[in-house]
Amino acid sequence: MIDLEYCRQLDGQDELAAFRDEFQLNEGQIYLVGNSLGAQPKAAAQRAAQVVEQEWGRDQVRSWNTAGWFELPLRLGDRIAPLIGAAPGEVAVTDSTSINLFKVLAAALHMQSAQAERRVILTERSNFPTDIYIAQGLARWLEQGYEVRLIDDPDDIAAALTPDVAVMMLTHVNYRTGRLLDMQALTRRAHEAGVLAIWDLAHSAGAVPVDLNACQADFAVGCTYKYFNAGPGAPAFLWVPKRHQAAFQSPLTGWWGHARPFAMEPGFQASPGVRAALCGTQPMVSLALVEVGVDMFARAGMAAVRRKSLALTDLFMALVEQECGVELALVSPRDHALRGSQVCYAHPHGYGLMQALIQRGVVGDYREPDILRFGFTPLYTRFEDVWQAVRILRELLTQRDFDLDPQRAAVT
Amino acid sequence: MIDLEYCRQLDGQDELAAFRDEFQLNEGQIYLVGNSLGAQPKAAAQRAAQVVEQEWGRDQVRSWNTAGWFELPLRLGDRIAPLIGAAPGEVAVTDSTSINLFKVLAAALHMQSAQAERRVILTERSNFPTDIYIAQGLARWLEQGYEVRLIDDPDDIAAALTPDVAVMMLTHVNYRTGRLLDMQALTRRAHEAGVLAIWDLAHSAGAVPVDLNACQADFAVGCTYKYFNAGPGAPAFLWVPKRHQAAFQSPLTGWWGHARPFAMEPGFQASPGVRAALCGTQPMVSLALVEVGVDMFARAGMAAVRRKSLALTDLFMALVEQECGVELALVSPRDHALRGSQVCYAHPHGYGLMQALIQRGVVGDYREPDILRFGFTPLYTRFEDVWQAVRILRELLTQRDFDLDPQRAAVT
Repeated sequence: MIDLEYCRQLDGQDELAAFRDEFQLNEGQIYLVGNSLGAQPKAAAQRAAQVVEQEWGRDQVRSWNTAGWFELPLRLGDRIAPLIGAAPGEVAVTDSTSINLFKVLAAALHMQSAQAERRVILTERSNFPTDIYIAQGLARWLEQGYEVRLIDDPDDIAAALTPDVAVMMLTHVNYRTGRLLDMQALTRRAHEAGVLAIWDLAHSAGAVPVDLNACQADFAVGCTYKYFNAGPGAPAFLWVPKRHQAAFQSPLTGWWGHARPFAMEPGFQASPGVRAALCGTQPMVSLALVEVGVDMFARAGMAAVRRKSLALTDLFMALVEQECGVELALVSPRDHALRGSQVCYAHPHGYGLMQALIQRGVVGDYREPDILRFGFTPLYTRFEDVWQAVRILRELLTQRDFDLDPQRAAVT
Repeated sequence: MIDLEYCRQLDGQDELAAFRDEFQLNEGQIYLVGNSLGAQPKAAAQRAAQVVEQEWGRDQVRSWNTAGWFELPLRLGDRIAPLIGAAPGEVAVTDSTSINLFKVLAAALHMQSAQAERRVILTERSNFPTDIYIAQGLARWLEQGYEVRLIDDPDDIAAALTPDVAVMMLTHVNYRTGRLLDMQALTRRAHEAGVLAIWDLAHSAGAVPVDLNACQADFAVGCTYKYFNAGPGAPAFLWVPKRHQAAFQSPLTGWWGHARPFAMEPGFQASPGVRAALCGTQPMVSLALVEVGVDMFARAGMAAVRRKSLALTDLFMALVEQECGVELALVSPRDHALRGSQVCYAHPHGYGLMQALIQRGVVGDYREPDILRFGFTPLYTRFEDVWQAVRILRELLTQRDFDLDPQRAAVT
């Protein structure tokens, strides 16, 4: 039997416990949705005030140089790089995940375009929809017979790497199930089949160790407003490894990606390096907050984050099993090698149950058709929080204290 | 002879004078670069703190609904609409100007694609380079023989509307010369020639009256961080008129543009209306500040803004002529009908002269190869500021107190 005392002992031994004080959290609430929108680091408030009042208000237009605004996308990229196994000069923080995916997918298709028989973009049907939509949009616009092929079971991906596939585009941790794919093995299999591998790290960057260069991945994109706690809709990142930078061509050729942006020349010439993936002017107030979130991970270390993530999710699954019986169907994998930093259960009245949990202060979220998602962010979630969340979940299930309201509302 | 007393009289009669107090301005500095980065409205500091500390920090993920984050791009679009002659439901604030131009240019080319003989995108060689680059990038990626044709003299645009032109893509006010094109006449000529007309309002929205629907323009994009004072790199806007919304197809098909974004379907179906132009998640802290800047224009009224803009630029040109003689070559048009809200002069040592002006507190900017730009933003520029700016300019020219440093640094 796991009890509250045991959970408190785990908190007492937690090497990351001190980070919790750096976050703005609500009394009496357990925030298990940092996989959707990370909680606010207290330092973000000071940083936002600094950008608005000093950099913009006082220093005005010269901040493009003096505050380093123009260089910020690449400087922040270099801060994220060690957290995802990338080298300096390979990552840029810019635009949205969807737009960055468009850039790297277009670049990958271009690299494969000489092979006329390869016209398939392979991905999972359960991938986050925007990834699929971006691929469908690009395929349609290129008008060269491209097709997006959806695989139903992640175990079938490797076998689907047929000679007509140009690009395998996968999300490292599934947004609904929390299942972690084997980046190394799948990338190797893709390369053996002549296929380029693009990885979306939206639910893995800041959540699980990622080693893009060790896996020899081809391109990657990711999100900063989930585990990296950079603020609502904060700019996303993309990764172009050194070995592909010379061949990389983005269709979004804006002036920030020009080799000489201030020469104001009437012909586009791509910048060397990952800078070629930049397009237009970036939203500096939102962008500056990325640094606050990412810096904490540099201090914590991804290995410690992963250790605590697995301990939290192990504890949650064990407690649900101990306290809640069989009514909730576990959707996430038990195997550490297959698990991200979230745990999901299916329940026939999932929507109503999640609404009742939120009413009681346990903030998870809901995904169609019947999935309760609980994200465990090691920097601000306590083991005691896990205990309390399961206690409230058990009470709701025991008392049948939730309704079947069919209304839906959710944002990733 | 115009004297300081006269300038002060103009300030005394200025119907917009009270707006100056709403901005954060530096004592002893004359900020004539609001056409590049608008000054900070004082209210932006409070709004940023509210978004970070309350909407993100306290209300967390539920702010997607309760704070209206998800609806913000269209809600802000409806605030900008009356300032540019657009109807409700036609404008979205999202992404960057470059990316929005990519969307509307792609949509326009698609609408023209059945006419195989029309494969030219017509624009000005002196257009802001990112517009040209975006067109070049799109033309190359479509691989259907598209070509970007650059016109050297704006007076030659109408004659260049030949039967091979698909789209005329122009910036309403030129970023270097401040010249204002005749949107109504050029759009009419384009339509007579079977050409669609796209307008970039980067240097006209918030600066001069714009009436997109009266001109029957086809698509438009624009910037919020210049005259609209929305903050560094704040998201841009785009306009898709009702009459083109059914035909509008963006290649950037992300989930925010889906008809049912939260149904998480594996196939893209475009939303009705301008929402189809949205792509991925937007940077909410930066986006929220757009409202602060735009709201002031609703209170001031574009007609009053234009009256004062012309009075300020008239005064500046008259004073430079009176005080500085012929050394500075006027680049901007004298005719009101051709003038935006900036005045530019060429000078053989333009870069060094601008650096010296900035040192003395007159903040304009410099554009290659020899252009001094002075932007006049009616909400916070006084007529006395114009006098003082010209006084300092005259002193520098008289004393030859500037150097020929060839170093360059500039951001639009």
